[in-house]
Amino acid sequence: MRALNLTLLTDLYELTMMQGYFKNPTDQVVVFDAFYRKNPCGGGYAIAAGLEQIIEYVRDLHFSPDDIDYLKSLNIFDSDFLEYLRGFHFTGDIYAIPEGTVVFPREPLLKVIAPVMEAQLVETAILNLLNHQSLIATKASRVVYAAKGDGVMEFGLRRAQGPDAGLYGARAAMIGGCIGTSNVLTGQMFHVPVKGTHAHSWIMSFPDEYTAFKTYASLYPNACILLVDTYDVLNSGVPNAIRVFKEMKEAGLPMKGYGIRIDSGDLAYLSKQAHRMLSEAGFGDAIISASSDLDEYLIESLKAQGAKINSWGVGTNLITCNDNPAFGGVYKLAAIKNKEDSDFVPKIKLSENVEKVTNPGNKTIMRIYDKATGKIRADLICLEDEVFNPEEDMIIFDPMATWKKTKLAGGSYILRELLVPVFQKGHCVYTSPSVMEIRDICQKELDTLWDETRRFTNPQEVFVDLSDKLYKIKSELLEKMGQAAIE
Amino acid sequence: MRALNLTLLTDLYELTMMQGYFKNPTDQVVVFDAFYRKNPCGGGYAIAAGLEQIIEYVRDLHFSPDDIDYLKSLNIFDSDFLEYLRGFHFTGDIYAIPEGTVVFPREPLLKVIAPVMEAQLVETAILNLLNHQSLIATKASRVVYAAKGDGVMEFGLRRAQGPDAGLYGARAAMIGGCIGTSNVLTGQMFHVPVKGTHAHSWIMSFPDEYTAFKTYASLYPNACILLVDTYDVLNSGVPNAIRVFKEMKEAGLPMKGYGIRIDSGDLAYLSKQAHRMLSEAGFGDAIISASSDLDEYLIESLKAQGAKINSWGVGTNLITCNDNPAFGGVYKLAAIKNKEDSDFVPKIKLSENVEKVTNPGNKTIMRIYDKATGKIRADLICLEDEVFNPEEDMIIFDPMATWKKTKLAGGSYILRELLVPVFQKGHCVYTSPSVMEIRDICQKELDTLWDETRRFTNPQEVFVDLSDKLYKIKSELLEKMGQAAIE
Repeated sequence: MRALNLTLLTDLYELTMMQGYFKNPTDQVVVFDAFYRKNPCGGGYAIAAGLEQIIEYVRDLHFSPDDIDYLKSLNIFDSDFLEYLRGFHFTGDIYAIPEGTVVFPREPLLKVIAPVMEAQLVETAILNLLNHQSLIATKASRVVYAAKGDGVMEFGLRRAQGPDAGLYGARAAMIGGCIGTSNVLTGQMFHVPVKGTHAHSWIMSFPDEYTAFKTYASLYPNACILLVDTYDVLNSGVPNAIRVFKEMKEAGLPMKGYGIRIDSGDLAYLSKQAHRMLSEAGFGDAIISASSDLDEYLIESLKAQGAKINSWGVGTNLITCNDNPAFGGVYKLAAIKNKEDSDFVPKIKLSENVEKVTNPGNKTIMRIYDKATGKIRADLICLEDEVFNPEEDMIIFDPMATWKKTKLAGGSYILRELLVPVFQKGHCVYTSPSVMEIRDICQKELDTLWDETRRFTNPQEVFVDLSDKLYKIKSELLEKMGQAAIE
Repeated sequence: MRALNLTLLTDLYELTMMQGYFKNPTDQVVVFDAFYRKNPCGGGYAIAAGLEQIIEYVRDLHFSPDDIDYLKSLNIFDSDFLEYLRGFHFTGDIYAIPEGTVVFPREPLLKVIAPVMEAQLVETAILNLLNHQSLIATKASRVVYAAKGDGVMEFGLRRAQGPDAGLYGARAAMIGGCIGTSNVLTGQMFHVPVKGTHAHSWIMSFPDEYTAFKTYASLYPNACILLVDTYDVLNSGVPNAIRVFKEMKEAGLPMKGYGIRIDSGDLAYLSKQAHRMLSEAGFGDAIISASSDLDEYLIESLKAQGAKINSWGVGTNLITCNDNPAFGGVYKLAAIKNKEDSDFVPKIKLSENVEKVTNPGNKTIMRIYDKATGKIRADLICLEDEVFNPEEDMIIFDPMATWKKTKLAGGSYILRELLVPVFQKGHCVYTSPSVMEIRDICQKELDTLWDETRRFTNPQEVFVDLSDKLYKIKSELLEKMGQAAIE
């Protein structure tokens, strides 16, 4: 479909740094973590997404002759380095949290272990893909949550930030729980349901609204959602729709999947009035679909007002995540070793802001579920070789306030390692589920959160703790750096 | 580079409506206007962008056998319609405002005149491309304005909403006035300067900061911007940078394009202190570059605080237009005629919201410049066949408050038609300038605005008036519709 040579979709500094390492040869193998610091939209969680596209990107990585020529034209790169790029491919390991999983701040969603030049090159595109899709999947899950079981359709392509934002944004929206998208290309590429009705222009291109409705009904009697707000919802749109529905009923049509769409005005008032009019005419089961600058807050408010809407088309605010349009994922060096060494040396980046100090070492994440309820108790970031026995008691503590301790009784909790192998020595060892399968996974994942974490205002934070061993390494590194600063 | 078959990048309803028209044959030729209603970020203008990609999209439009198979699999489309799609290509006319032009609400940025099926199909992708790039070009022009002549670099790829948002967002940012981008693929595809230095990981992969700096300086002595905030800006980063600069100077290097980058912390304080330290060491001309969640407001504030920054790397907030991530462009039916008729019948869409009532008819836009200053006096939306003589007095009026009249003396103003032909009978008749040429055009365009319109808070609105003839047609249509509603 789309031939993606995205090898040059990177920041220039990745390439200048690569040349730096090339000119100062090193056997360094490094660990980079991709993680984020703050849940989008002030929420209590995020949804990991974008891994399938990251896999494609890493698999396809290669510098074409055109790419080499272009880089040469910049007069920054020497011919020996360009020759190296000509034969470049990724030889490292990648671990990632599967798509559709609920995730929390500071957890590595993806970990790259590779020679430093390779690990550096892939930074920008990995972040781009992970940031975008995780953002939209998270936003979609919030909108779907507000709709309380009603279907939510993704309608945002025209307002998306470019073709890919529409294409992959709709993919992510499906993962987050939408029941369909208007985006036909997404439907084709990812085998997800496509949905839609008609535009105001359809109505306006006929002599009158009734004729437009009638023509549409004759074309699509089994998916006849009529757009009623071109002229006047209650005085023209709904009466004309009822007239057409009556004719359909008289013609013996099964009357399934029929209804109206309201795209402007006071949705609470109009939907209640429309529902009353439809019910009085014997069409109380008509779908009432709404689509007008919706988001999770507006849907929640309309529900609270008793709006008679049971189908939601959400565009701009979902596809751009308008109240928080960037996920903020970063990619930070966590450990280094020489190729022949067995152990990694943990590395840390300081910051004036305590929250921004990175977690050092080659890590993984253990998710701790409460055995009785299946809900998440906490996540534990630990070193990748740590072993925990869920039959034993476990004491976890808040790394920002170490006196806040919790004891989990042995046998009361289940452990699951979140990071799974995706690439091993440059070979992909992971098969992505289909988007609809990831959507199912995501629904189950969301069920592992309490409603208190899913709510929009002041959600309860899920604890992300550090293992005792990791906490000690981090403290020692900080102490050493602080000591060095005053010497 | 990227094989783009974006024919299915459309909303499903465009295709279901097309089938509707196919099944109810019509000779209708229609006029659709793409316009927006509100300037992004509360500003006083926007920058048109994205036309080059729209041209590529329209030129490439075709349904591949795979596309037809996919559409067939949906069980919505009949074989005769699919057969029609197999031979589909665009045969209509497109007019557009050239990229880089300053534009205002309610003006058609692009106008499609085509058989209704064709005009309908292209809606979604045209809006997607126009909305995205116009948004980012506008945001970039604001950030560049705040920087008051300092260079602004686009650094946002990792936070962009997918690959295209990074790729074309950087293109649009260049149009809006950035001096370069970190995005190598944008550099390659659009022949714009690429820029960059190194990351914290570069510093951390060396035994100490000084060694990292020294190594970088030996690699790139003519573009040696050292990132000084990995450990401690004033106690470690700047002193180490000064040590390296001294060594470079002693080695007889020309010391051009050298300096530091600060990526965190209090940029006002740190830049002033760093500048003092650099100056005392004889490096008062060092570049001080900043890059930390910047936008136009923060840059304006840093300037007001006397921050010693003269180079700006702007990422997330530019590439997503974070405070207003959707442009809001719409595509509305304005007129219809039968193929054999010469005159279009104007069409109007009503709305509860007076501002949302569309402007009917086959229109164009005349820009009125003040001859003495070269600044824009007003824009006039008129019918495409209206003729104005700039030697005669012209009276313009606010269409929302018709008593607000202005008389322009004959000879004191210059007229320019903004819409230019892009496609004629399906053939492209327009050649896009290069991105750097569009950037130059945009700089000149911005000079046609008063500073009062460019400021961020309460900008002075540029008047967009309707011609007398258009105003009368609109009023009559509204009157007729209002009359019909009460009958």
